[in-house]
Amino acid sequence: MTNKHNIILQPSGSRGQVEEGQSIRSAARDLGVEIESICAENATCGKCMVLIEEGRFEKYNIDSRRENVSPVSAEEAAYFARRPKFLKDKGWEVGQVRLSCQCKILGDVLINVPEESRGNKQIVRKSASQREIEIKPAVRKYLVTLTPPNLERPIADWERLAKGLETSMALVRGHEETLPRWHEFSIDYQCLRTLSSTLREAKWNVTVSVWQDREVVQVQPGYHENSYGAAVDIGSTTVALYLCNLRTGELLAAESEMNPQIVYGEDVMSRIQYTIEHKDGLEKLHKSIISTLNKLLKQAVKTANSHLLETDDLNTGRENPASTRPSYIKMEEILEMVLVGNSTMHHILLNLPPKDLGLAPFVPAIHKSVDVKARELGLHISPSANIHVLPTIASFVGADTSAMIVAEEPHKQDENWLLIDIGTNAELVLGNRKRLVCTSTPTGPALEGAHVEYGMRAAPGAMERIHIDENTLEPKYKVIGVDGWNTDHAEFKGQVKGICGSAIIDGVAELFRTGIVDSRGKFKQGLESSRIRKGESGWEYVIAWAEETSIGRDIPMTQQDVRQIQLAKAALFTAARTLLKRSGLESPDKIILAGGFGSYIDKEKAMLIGLIPDCVLDNVYAVGNAAGDGARIALLNVEKRREIESVTRKVERFELPTDPEFQNQFMLATSFPHMSEAFPHIAHLIPNRVADPMAKNFTTK
Amino acid sequence: MTNKHNIILQPSGSRGQVEEGQSIRSAARDLGVEIESICAENATCGKCMVLIEEGRFEKYNIDSRRENVSPVSAEEAAYFARRPKFLKDKGWEVGQVRLSCQCKILGDVLINVPEESRGNKQIVRKSASQREIEIKPAVRKYLVTLTPPNLERPIADWERLAKGLETSMALVRGHEETLPRWHEFSIDYQCLRTLSSTLREAKWNVTVSVWQDREVVQVQPGYHENSYGAAVDIGSTTVALYLCNLRTGELLAAESEMNPQIVYGEDVMSRIQYTIEHKDGLEKLHKSIISTLNKLLKQAVKTANSHLLETDDLNTGRENPASTRPSYIKMEEILEMVLVGNSTMHHILLNLPPKDLGLAPFVPAIHKSVDVKARELGLHISPSANIHVLPTIASFVGADTSAMIVAEEPHKQDENWLLIDIGTNAELVLGNRKRLVCTSTPTGPALEGAHVEYGMRAAPGAMERIHIDENTLEPKYKVIGVDGWNTDHAEFKGQVKGICGSAIIDGVAELFRTGIVDSRGKFKQGLESSRIRKGESGWEYVIAWAEETSIGRDIPMTQQDVRQIQLAKAALFTAARTLLKRSGLESPDKIILAGGFGSYIDKEKAMLIGLIPDCVLDNVYAVGNAAGDGARIALLNVEKRREIESVTRKVERFELPTDPEFQNQFMLATSFPHMSEAFPHIAHLIPNRVADPMAKNFTTK
Repeated sequence: MTNKHNIILQPSGSRGQVEEGQSIRSAARDLGVEIESICAENATCGKCMVLIEEGRFEKYNIDSRRENVSPVSAEEAAYFARRPKFLKDKGWEVGQVRLSCQCKILGDVLINVPEESRGNKQIVRKSASQREIEIKPAVRKYLVTLTPPNLERPIADWERLAKGLETSMALVRGHEETLPRWHEFSIDYQCLRTLSSTLREAKWNVTVSVWQDREVVQVQPGYHENSYGAAVDIGSTTVALYLCNLRTGELLAAESEMNPQIVYGEDVMSRIQYTIEHKDGLEKLHKSIISTLNKLLKQAVKTANSHLLETDDLNTGRENPASTRPSYIKMEEILEMVLVGNSTMHHILLNLPPKDLGLAPFVPAIHKSVDVKARELGLHISPSANIHVLPTIASFVGADTSAMIVAEEPHKQDENWLLIDIGTNAELVLGNRKRLVCTSTPTGPALEGAHVEYGMRAAPGAMERIHIDENTLEPKYKVIGVDGWNTDHAEFKGQVKGICGSAIIDGVAELFRTGIVDSRGKFKQGLESSRIRKGESGWEYVIAWAEETSIGRDIPMTQQDVRQIQLAKAALFTAARTLLKRSGLESPDKIILAGGFGSYIDKEKAMLIGLIPDCVLDNVYAVGNAAGDGARIALLNVEKRREIESVTRKVERFELPTDPEFQNQFMLATSFPHMSEAFPHIAHLIPNRVADPMAKNFTTK
Repeated sequence: MTNKHNIILQPSGSRGQVEEGQSIRSAARDLGVEIESICAENATCGKCMVLIEEGRFEKYNIDSRRENVSPVSAEEAAYFARRPKFLKDKGWEVGQVRLSCQCKILGDVLINVPEESRGNKQIVRKSASQREIEIKPAVRKYLVTLTPPNLERPIADWERLAKGLETSMALVRGHEETLPRWHEFSIDYQCLRTLSSTLREAKWNVTVSVWQDREVVQVQPGYHENSYGAAVDIGSTTVALYLCNLRTGELLAAESEMNPQIVYGEDVMSRIQYTIEHKDGLEKLHKSIISTLNKLLKQAVKTANSHLLETDDLNTGRENPASTRPSYIKMEEILEMVLVGNSTMHHILLNLPPKDLGLAPFVPAIHKSVDVKARELGLHISPSANIHVLPTIASFVGADTSAMIVAEEPHKQDENWLLIDIGTNAELVLGNRKRLVCTSTPTGPALEGAHVEYGMRAAPGAMERIHIDENTLEPKYKVIGVDGWNTDHAEFKGQVKGICGSAIIDGVAELFRTGIVDSRGKFKQGLESSRIRKGESGWEYVIAWAEETSIGRDIPMTQQDVRQIQLAKAALFTAARTLLKRSGLESPDKIILAGGFGSYIDKEKAMLIGLIPDCVLDNVYAVGNAAGDGARIALLNVEKRREIESVTRKVERFELPTDPEFQNQFMLATSFPHMSEAFPHIAHLIPNRVADPMAKNFTTK
């Protein structure tokens, strides 16, 4: 019979009797306390450090002393000898701190498990957009140490590795029940090609990267703990790439580039047209995006490595315990990518003809997510890496919307949320845990500043805010790159050159609020202001006189500009209203505005002109690039992929043109709301004039 | 309540009551009788034909008449109208013969299900080597007819196809329980790329080829019933390719070519050496075999198509019901390949470095079977086709041995079988359903005619049989391309040029049997014959005088030749004996000789010199190219692949050099057996001279 000893694990307070000679890590597991380890108990990773507390602990009636555990082994001593700075910073001494996979119990002890060693912990990471992401990557690494083959046991390299991997995976993740057996593992063909030479070069001590707990995608000599991955949002205009550490979730670099397909067409419809009219059109568009992705990947690795260089000394600490030199990231260490984009970008990325996305009945080639090898797409990362493309929902509700759902999780809410991604095309998702409905609508380029006489992109010199005094009808405005309002400056000359999207919304809202245009969007005549005048193309309101501009011309908002915004907001509003009606709702509990544009507009003004439906103003949020965030979340947490796959399969899609009321509703929605009944939450902003007969157009009652 | 009617199905005699309006095929299934269908009940494939018998059948007390089923539908009429010749040949008329998927029951009927329409039937096919193969291919085809998308149901192309495929598969194979649901199907990426255009070109009526009931690998417009596959045996010397119809199992073409790697080395060891010594060595060897495979595939398709042309009128019959033109096979219709070869050929095919196959401890890169896409290997068949390479067992017991096991099935026997594949290297498998052991041994090139003074390959002009009269010590021989013995001809001149493998065995056996050489292989001196003389390299026996040859020189068998055969047979015998000993057996119940060499040798003579262990002579079989047959079986029957995977995982491997007795046993086995105790089954052949002290070397007692 073996001796039993009392152990206590802090801070959980778990206690129990364990057999003499058991390792602390194994004993802790028996008592329900998981301690980290990624090196399969090889005294290499240092993730399983614990502290042996000394003294008499009356509360537990226990005498705990260092002699009650096995002496520091040669491997442990070597491990700690390599990181004196780390020990000094922590104020720990060897003997007090131990590797729990090596340290065996010989008597009663009280053990402190420091936070960083605790298994099952929710590793969270504040992302650029302050989202918390639980790290559960598709690719995980395991140190596998093999007995070399000999004449008595000449089993093949792959089978030897698979058996070792089974053992290592079980040691690292022993608390999980459904781990695969060795014969269930597979190895990517290109990875198999170099397996034999790698194993021998590594003297049978390798780090194996496993995708989805099944497929071996990389075998590296020696010990490595970090894997890298990239999340990409392919927008029609901009491509944004995020390089992440798959183990820690850390964002290592964020890079963006213009989408090179713009030369083949500004919007998705013209790019689809290009592929129809040119025999090699799809191939050209496909190759251009692939080459941009390769460029972004290279830039991101460069950026991340330059940061590593700056924080060189960090690498001598715990982050990179096996080496005192910083380990620079190589392109072929990128082991997975997750990509999102609208359905047209999705099809072109995958080299699928997008023709039918643009022709009725508007059908994508595939809804479900696609996993394809990097080498099949010509991406210059590990050839065995898998490229995961999120599912599409409909022809105009693409993988970017799936990613927005991943990021915002409307399917987990009790409240009804309305998600709107505003661009040249707007995608809308409405609902809660019980039901999600979605649709899309073309909003035209007006909201992004195009097709507006003095419209421009958000850049220095662009007006970003406009306010009009309702008594004097005089405007004031803010310009990107200039502090405060123009009227705050003693002299304001030559500093403005156009109007960007958010100011266009402001301008139209103010023209309406101050009664310069009526609820039908028509300029009223007979108002006393030199700013209201008849221009070349009809009535207009001058916001900036020529001397305030760098272009030497007055900058007005014209009747035509107002009409453009009316069409865009009518499309968006009708889409939102259709979803609300189909869901039997009057208004959403929360409105989430995704995309760059949504971040800059004044939500009060947006509601005032009826761009978005009525909602408590405090419940209207702008969340930035939700699609990019969703891609990053799906990269770092494989469970989110399964989740979105099943959510998208259930989302109900409404194609607006098939709605019998659509044309009628759309025409009615072109006017401005102008009534407190329909928009109670902005009632105080609305001019106190006669009730408008159009009010009924803006209610879903 | 619906009416019920009595139906009887012949020849099974199954009977029962079924509801009015049910189709015959569906009613039959309810009564446990499966009727074939591959078009998913579209009246297209004609596989479900049945005959409605007319008259009163007293035995069953039933009045059966054609009016008791629904009238011939327009689809059925059209189907039969396309094949008048078939109906005429069968002597059937429309109305009597019906498509059971279309024909509905309206009253009592007796139905005859012709043999070819019966489901669950064991489709067997006599192969070139007379093996019966049950046809269960990995790739099956299904006709899928889809409702085109519209604005109300704009579901994506893939999901639409997958749902249709689920329905078709269930209709065709309703009796199987574990068919996948639509979301469990996947589609090969390269196949996805053309999906949308194919579906539209085909007006939503396509034939879908599914691999392993899971992965869609081809979508063709319209109806197709045949899929093609190729089985290949890559020998060190010869590559043999068999093109098969995967539905019927028919062998459409058999082609072979020299292995082009011969220029890089005659045997596997020298090719391994070439890859070690040359940086691009592996790449060169790999590319040369791939290009030979592409050449063979092209030849095989050409051969098969030329046969199709000859049997053109057959195609107007049932074989190709959808068309009256012969459908020529295209390269991209080849949807799967199964390859076998020794471990070195296996590695080079897969572009895996073979270095460690040739260095102790002799370890392959992988044992288990590999599936890899045709496009990854550069094979010019369907890019989505899977290439299945059978498992390897050891460094010198490769996928060709796995294939031999598939073909001969020792693992299903109660008796102990010894399988021997003789070539430059010999592989041996011994055992039964309880246990299989295997090993391999180098036999040198002597058995194939090389390293023998006048040795040559089996070709016209080669001696293939030798007999020596034990009294006169005069020989007679047979020559390939010449009828009878040389002594049967009045004048025999200039017709022989060398000795091939089978005659070498004969010659050595006869030299020993007639006492010209002793049991140690030494020429005895003092025998009275002008044929026995001292040549340049020692004693020799002249088989053919110069005037009988086309080379103008005497053709002798030399002391050196006898030594070569002694070494080869000692290696083979020691290997067999080691396996027998490890299995606790004295002798096998059956010996199976595989490979070309095994087919030509005289089994009595082989046993006489101790090339193979003692066994009842009638139980020694030559089976030809068992590896090629095994590859073809694995191609046509997917269950055999799972079977061999699990069998190979359990085969016990013995590496001879690690056997402590090996060197000693090998030396002893170089002598000839020469005793009735050890080889009772050939005792009558052995010269009745003194008992030989070497006898004990040839028993496992």
